[in-house]
Amino acid sequence: MPPLNVSELVDRAREGQPRAVAKLISLVEDASPRLREVAAALTPHTGNARVIGLTGPPGVGKSTSTSMLLSALRKEGKRVGVLAIDPSSPFSGGALLGDRIRMTEHATDPGVYIRSMATRGHLGGLSWATPQAVRVLDAAGFDYVLIETVGVGQSEVDVVKLADTTVVLLAPGMGDGIQAAKAGVLEIADVFVVNKSDRDGAEVVVRDLKQLISFARREIRGESWRQPIVRTVASREEGAGELVAALNEHHDWLAAHGELARRREHRAASEVEAIALRRLRAELEDLHGGGHLSGLARQVVERQLDPYAAADALLDSLRPGQ
Amino acid sequence: MPPLNVSELVDRAREGQPRAVAKLISLVEDASPRLREVAAALTPHTGNARVIGLTGPPGVGKSTSTSMLLSALRKEGKRVGVLAIDPSSPFSGGALLGDRIRMTEHATDPGVYIRSMATRGHLGGLSWATPQAVRVLDAAGFDYVLIETVGVGQSEVDVVKLADTTVVLLAPGMGDGIQAAKAGVLEIADVFVVNKSDRDGAEVVVRDLKQLISFARREIRGESWRQPIVRTVASREEGAGELVAALNEHHDWLAAHGELARRREHRAASEVEAIALRRLRAELEDLHGGGHLSGLARQVVERQLDPYAAADALLDSLRPGQ
Repeated sequence: MPPLNVSELVDRAREGQPRAVAKLISLVEDASPRLREVAAALTPHTGNARVIGLTGPPGVGKSTSTSMLLSALRKEGKRVGVLAIDPSSPFSGGALLGDRIRMTEHATDPGVYIRSMATRGHLGGLSWATPQAVRVLDAAGFDYVLIETVGVGQSEVDVVKLADTTVVLLAPGMGDGIQAAKAGVLEIADVFVVNKSDRDGAEVVVRDLKQLISFARREIRGESWRQPIVRTVASREEGAGELVAALNEHHDWLAAHGELARRREHRAASEVEAIALRRLRAELEDLHGGGHLSGLARQVVERQLDPYAAADALLDSLRPGQ
Repeated sequence: MPPLNVSELVDRAREGQPRAVAKLISLVEDASPRLREVAAALTPHTGNARVIGLTGPPGVGKSTSTSMLLSALRKEGKRVGVLAIDPSSPFSGGALLGDRIRMTEHATDPGVYIRSMATRGHLGGLSWATPQAVRVLDAAGFDYVLIETVGVGQSEVDVVKLADTTVVLLAPGMGDGIQAAKAGVLEIADVFVVNKSDRDGAEVVVRDLKQLISFARREIRGESWRQPIVRTVASREEGAGELVAALNEHHDWLAAHGELARRREHRAASEVEAIALRRLRAELEDLHGGGHLSGLARQVVERQLDPYAAADALLDSLRPGQ
């Protein structure tokens, strides 16, 4: 492997070369020791991308909706990066692969970059890699970064919280799930999309959502942002213009209320905290690899040590000065 | 609130008082400062419970199967604790609530303790609380601890890995999901259950599984454990005896091959590592609360600092001696 020239790589990514972008994100996923250099080279170029999270229960049409949004933004001449969060769960890998294939229509467009982020593996996973991948795309000059998640695990929800604007997708005919979904998503949704809105039951979903929104506004939200409900049929690209308009409106609201800066600070704080935590974790892993942790674990199993005393011993070896 | 007498609480839990057990698990979930004392009091009484993980895709009948297994073990006079992992996702809260209600038939049985573990919230969540909750139930004299998860996110899969034996449930008629499921679950399954085996397509699931197992054994597994496939109709409690037999067989295999000790060491190592990490995280949070992290995040947003330099500054304030 030739030696890595970080500043050249960043330059090429900024010129729009997808292989350079891919290489930078791989450095993030692989937790490369060169990331420190990469981050320093990227940071001066960041702060321009709008970050949109898209989430919702399985089967709601997330990838089709992401694809529709992507097409609409491309028609406006925007460059768009997509991070598709693949939880690498034993139970979803295949389905997501299918979704990715549906997105191949964008694969040859130089203004588009699509990446599946693997969450499997240890050391912080998604919460560590995603904000840094957003930073790569931001610095590479993408106008929008779309983060699409399957929206079932806590880690996926956390990732959505990294966005400037979070879009929650629902659809008619989801059975019992819809009730549960509606109750919980209010806190994270900035914009609601009712996809498959040509199907029976779509108006019931919209009506229930409206009730819930007005109830929640009275009960828990003092803010002035009114979560809009956009009806779409993503498979036919219907409602794309309305969705883009809703996103623009929310962006303007964020900017006017100082909320954009607050959300971006929150994202940066998550990123910094994840980097710090990962380093501490890596130090613990070194101890693990060195057999110290497994020796302590054996003593816990044999009831010679309780787990807190073992954790003390582990931390003492991590921080010999204290 | 009266002062907490930890040793009295542990004694009462060991006498089988459900409120004492509940209180101890709440101390875990709330990350009580008294946990150190609790762990010390519990540890001498641990090491007897068999820990069984049950997981599988949504809709497969996990709670019904857990309930069936619970009944079968109760008939043998075993005391059984159940930890139901509720990912508290906006998209699943309601469904799990329904599952819990289905389990109420066991609610009045003093040999049964059922607890939903919330994963929401920070500081390690599930990976932190679950092994300690297992420790509580183990020390309280439960012969079996069943950990039931929805099996969709990475954190749920990690929890299953805490078990001595992992049961993966599948069912016919799950659509595309079954293919994906089968491909990924081989690594974590010790026992397969094909539930709803009276339905059309059950034999296809069994046949495909058999093929996959024999293929995987040649390709990736050198071990001698042969993953059995148990057919059940959990709603009618059919196949319960076969499932218990498969679990016993796996337990004997684990014990005979030194694998039981290895898995329990792995669980203890996870527990110790999670306790250590949580403490480090809490220290970072204190800095967060003190405004230091948000100040650093602001500098990152304003491009005056890259996130790695900010993480350095954060860690320096955490470890002043280094």
